[in-house]
Amino acid sequence: MNRKFLEMETLLVELGRGFYARGWVLGTSGNFSAVVSHDPFCMAITSTGLDKGSLMPDELVRVDANGSVTEGSGQPSAETALHLLAVRVCQAGAVLHTHSVWSTMISDLHAGQGGIWIEGYEMLKGLQGVSSHTHREWLPIIENDQDMVRLVGAVETMLSQHPDVHGFLLRRHGLYTWGEDLAQAKRHLEILEFLLEVIGRTRYASATSAS
Amino acid sequence: MNRKFLEMETLLVELGRGFYARGWVLGTSGNFSAVVSHDPFCMAITSTGLDKGSLMPDELVRVDANGSVTEGSGQPSAETALHLLAVRVCQAGAVLHTHSVWSTMISDLHAGQGGIWIEGYEMLKGLQGVSSHTHREWLPIIENDQDMVRLVGAVETMLSQHPDVHGFLLRRHGLYTWGEDLAQAKRHLEILEFLLEVIGRTRYASATSAS
Amino acid sequence: MNRKFLEMETLLVELGRGFYARGWVLGTSGNFSAVVSHDPFCMAITSTGLDKGSLMPDELVRVDANGSVTEGSGQPSAETALHLLAVRVCQAGAVLHTHSVWSTMISDLHAGQGGIWIEGYEMLKGLQGVSSHTHREWLPIIENDQDMVRLVGAVETMLSQHPDVHGFLLRRHGLYTWGEDLAQAKRHLEILEFLLEVIGRTRYASATSAS
Amino acid sequence: MNRKFLEMETLLVELGRGFYARGWVLGTSGNFSAVVSHDPFCMAITSTGLDKGSLMPDELVRVDANGSVTEGSGQPSAETALHLLAVRVCQAGAVLHTHSVWSTMISDLHAGQGGIWIEGYEMLKGLQGVSSHTHREWLPIIENDQDMVRLVGAVETMLSQHPDVHGFLLRRHGLYTWGEDLAQAKRHLEILEFLLEVIGRTRYASATSAS
Repeated sequence: MNRKFLEMETLLVELGRGFYARGWVLGTSGNFSAVVSHDPFCMAITSTGLDKGSLMPDELVRVDANGSVTEGSGQPSAETALHLLAVRVCQAGAVLHTHSVWSTMISDLHAGQGGIWIEGYEMLKGLQGVSSHTHREWLPIIENDQDMVRLVGAVETMLSQHPDVHGFLLRRHGLYTWGEDLAQAKRHLEILEFLLEVIGRTRYASATSAS
Repeated sequence: MNRKFLEMETLLVELGRGFYARGWVLGTSGNFSAVVSHDPFCMAITSTGLDKGSLMPDELVRVDANGSVTEGSGQPSAETALHLLAVRVCQAGAVLHTHSVWSTMISDLHAGQGGIWIEGYEMLKGLQGVSSHTHREWLPIIENDQDMVRLVGAVETMLSQHPDVHGFLLRRHGLYTWGEDLAQAKRHLEILEFLLEVIGRTRYASATSAS
Repeated sequence: MNRKFLEMETLLVELGRGFYARGWVLGTSGNFSAVVSHDPFCMAITSTGLDKGSLMPDELVRVDANGSVTEGSGQPSAETALHLLAVRVCQAGAVLHTHSVWSTMISDLHAGQGGIWIEGYEMLKGLQGVSSHTHREWLPIIENDQDMVRLVGAVETMLSQHPDVHGFLLRRHGLYTWGEDLAQAKRHLEILEFLLEVIGRTRYASATSAS
Repeated sequence: MNRKFLEMETLLVELGRGFYARGWVLGTSGNFSAVVSHDPFCMAITSTGLDKGSLMPDELVRVDANGSVTEGSGQPSAETALHLLAVRVCQAGAVLHTHSVWSTMISDLHAGQGGIWIEGYEMLKGLQGVSSHTHREWLPIIENDQDMVRLVGAVETMLSQHPDVHGFLLRRHGLYTWGEDLAQAKRHLEILEFLLEVIGRTRYASATSAS
């Protein structure tokens, strides 16, 4: 297990630095986790307030199913409960949360509709279980909330209504996505961030006449 | 031949990582190929579903003219038939396919015209056989399709009508381009991606008054 | 102290190169400082006119509370007085000044209001002392001025009226921010640059209809 | 002299790779030069058609005042005459030419005015001889032309009318700038590219109401 933990830590650190380079987790924002073992349950997660551009493996902590630290010296992310929720309800093996410019913008511009339908893009096929660009993906938007218990409740309610989603937006906050493992979660993150940028830029372009 | 294969693999891997850094092949999207030998025909191509940011030479496979794997352990890209078509019809020695934000957008915004005319840009001179910025380049847009046989047929029909194109867009999917060798294909890709960004951004700017 | 100075120089150089990579300090623009000791007062600051992409530790100088060089061979930044002001009035341990595209633009577009209110973003929580996205942050905009004494006076007056700000914009010039130490100053910089980009891009998106 | 040449080659190669990373010289576009010695006159310049992302020192050639190769095996850039013109008329020690998205766009959008006035930006102070943001900089736009003799003539006429410019745009082609040495030319390039991006983005933002 120690061996696996080290590999996972290394992968998480590499992912984090890559997302930082893209500007998706500036200012110590964002947090990442991966399940290390299911029985006993153990999840590695970034400590709170870390600079993701210089993330180090020993800046992760391990938590149990209640979010209590079982190993490591930092304080787990304040949003650990959302990670544990995705693991429990969506059978996620890894959960990634970013604060990008486009997710922040789209989560606000479409908040009135409670989410955004994304369809017709080849990129959607990279989402687990999707086999055609004609797929219609619902990306829910949840109102941001500093009360973590209430926020987890709102997300859990949404997930029970939309069990097939691959992620969700917190309004003016950022994107949550997950996967069976880190590789799949990374793929989902890149796809959703890409699609949010396409949607955001298309808003301007559609309002102008063709050149 | 083995020596050449290794060099080509190394080049393909470097190209792929570079395109990933630019955000042109996020979420395991995109695929790249290069002809290793003509007789017997052998083409190296990326396996399906690879993270292009950590692409390794041994993640490529070799296929024959029918797309059957002759060497390597992965499954070749699902779009191998499009690569083989460009090799056969356009005498391509290398084929590159990306999913960038701008190609995705432009392929949709101009789909109604079946393509987009690009003219008047100095950058066009980097396309093989073009000697003046006054050149008019037609970049066709093909409707996206999950039926690969039908899609290959549509592209083949287009190529027979427009034999001089340097690439084409699949609607809401991405860009295909090619060259006599990898260096030329890379040049064509960078030029077309650049021009699509210029065209996309100019749409907004043209709709506003000069500052 | 020497040891601390060397660590600080290394950190400042790394920060500077990172900001250069993001395009925030192109063309030798921007300057960075950090307090090395309080008694006697000693601040490390970038020399004037340096290329931030190839910044080296020995290109920093040390100055006293009057901005006079006490160690190092370069000429301190022409804006050293603004750094010393932030140290004195805001108890800053580090001061960062960038010239980004978005800060330049927003500082001009909102100059008529003397600043810009930023509220409702989760990212605001990364600013020291802010605990909710509902926080309302005032980012003042000061008219640019080549008379450094007059400019320092204008900033000092603003700081006495708005002692809780985390930074300010100089019109068509750039962003100043600071923190207790370099890590906090870096966090504040990334957060404010991020929010300025979100605000700038949202201006276009809000003027168009939803897709 | 050999020693100096090697240093200059190394610097040119580093600059070129950095500009490539920013997307300013994609698709083998752009060319860079630096004067190695004045008597006898010798200028190092990039060969034609090079991938700037993998530029190597031995891909430069040396030319004399007529543009004839005196050392090196490649063919000098087709635009060598424009470099020699800037050296002769503007006393340039280094000349840099890029094809960025924003310079391509702005050179077209403002072509009707024959150039663009840039004023009021602190960044202007990084241009040699400019001491205040209130400076008004004229950036001329010359119609693109494949006839190099005619193009050089048009640029020379413009330079005789506007001897104080720090660069110029070729319409739908790109930016030329220069400096006493490579460091100054690099500074001028980054400043002008930055300002063109600010001007381009401000066009959209100004057309919309404040958020």
